[in-house]
Amino acid sequence: MVQIQRNEASRSRPGKREERRTEIVRLAAAAFREHGFHGAGMREIATAAGMVPGNLYYYFRNKDDLLWFCQRQALSRLMAGARRIVRAKGAGRERLAAILEAHVICLLETTGGSAAHLEFRSLPPSRRQEIVAQRDAYERLVRRVVKEGQRDLSLRHVDVKLATLGLLGAANSTVTWFRPEGSRSAREIAASFADTLVGGLAT
Amino acid sequence: MVQIQRNEASRSRPGKREERRTEIVRLAAAAFREHGFHGAGMREIATAAGMVPGNLYYYFRNKDDLLWFCQRQALSRLMAGARRIVRAKGAGRERLAAILEAHVICLLETTGGSAAHLEFRSLPPSRRQEIVAQRDAYERLVRRVVKEGQRDLSLRHVDVKLATLGLLGAANSTVTWFRPEGSRSAREIAASFADTLVGGLAT
Repeated sequence: MVQIQRNEASRSRPGKREERRTEIVRLAAAAFREHGFHGAGMREIATAAGMVPGNLYYYFRNKDDLLWFCQRQALSRLMAGARRIVRAKGAGRERLAAILEAHVICLLETTGGSAAHLEFRSLPPSRRQEIVAQRDAYERLVRRVVKEGQRDLSLRHVDVKLATLGLLGAANSTVTWFRPEGSRSAREIAASFADTLVGGLAT
Repeated sequence: MVQIQRNEASRSRPGKREERRTEIVRLAAAAFREHGFHGAGMREIATAAGMVPGNLYYYFRNKDDLLWFCQRQALSRLMAGARRIVRAKGAGRERLAAILEAHVICLLETTGGSAAHLEFRSLPPSRRQEIVAQRDAYERLVRRVVKEGQRDLSLRHVDVKLATLGLLGAANSTVTWFRPEGSRSAREIAASFADTLVGGLAT
């Protein structure tokens, strides 16, 4: 009963806490970049977020909880971005390029460029299922745009599954080498990837 | 003194031991695919390789040692394959496609498709340096072929660094989803990636 009340209470005012969790995860990305996801403990994450560890535990029960939040949030954002683009007008090729560009910007800018967003195999099985389902739904959406591009003749008739995995694999790999202080901005990388990778599928 | 003699002895007959280590690492890939690199301990690796853990320790001092061996070997093979292709005749575009195809086949077929080959951030710093230098040399070789393709006009004048990272990122990502029993073979994936990804750089 208490549990239920707590859940309801947190549902009715998710704003502040969710905002703070989002901000912590964004700052924590620096710790993941430096130490790797597995090398960064709650202590390093707290330091990167400018907090004492005890305070971090107030927002995330443990690293699994933080990881799950990272992934759920990144996938929700990717999904929301892709849905907007899917509904827009235009040839499949342009919409696919827009999705890829939005994907890279989301990973590198909005969520802070941390590989934690992709480490779904590190999640405990109970939480992995939810994230994998979310990821699969996103992949289906991208495949749908590839198929639409093939129908409107803006994209070649290649293997849709492999083409989609190639695009997303390249986009996701950016988090392993991107540095905010590096020579290429998130937006430059996103534009370059959308051009060169989607270009290979074009008619 | 004993240490030196041992090193020299193992250097003079690297064949058998190296072969066995290679075979173990190839079999261990199944454990990494199932449990993730960080989830698979020496026990799971031994099981996947059909050994008792004690026997595995005879070949690898610990998981770091095994990881370092995986990466050094994968990179040596990638490098050897790319060097052969770089020396061959043909337009930059064809040679780049050949390198990408060889890269995917090497990761998925020869080295067993395990993400352990890419987890260089998990290595202790002393060993990481060597692997990162080897990886950088490989990336330079691929960039050279992109530049040659731009000079011979078979490839567009795009950002060479980002184009190379896009190709390699996509190729490397295959190890995260490839299943030997899956619907696409390593060679089908390699051919598809070489076609669609390098196609986007073509003039």
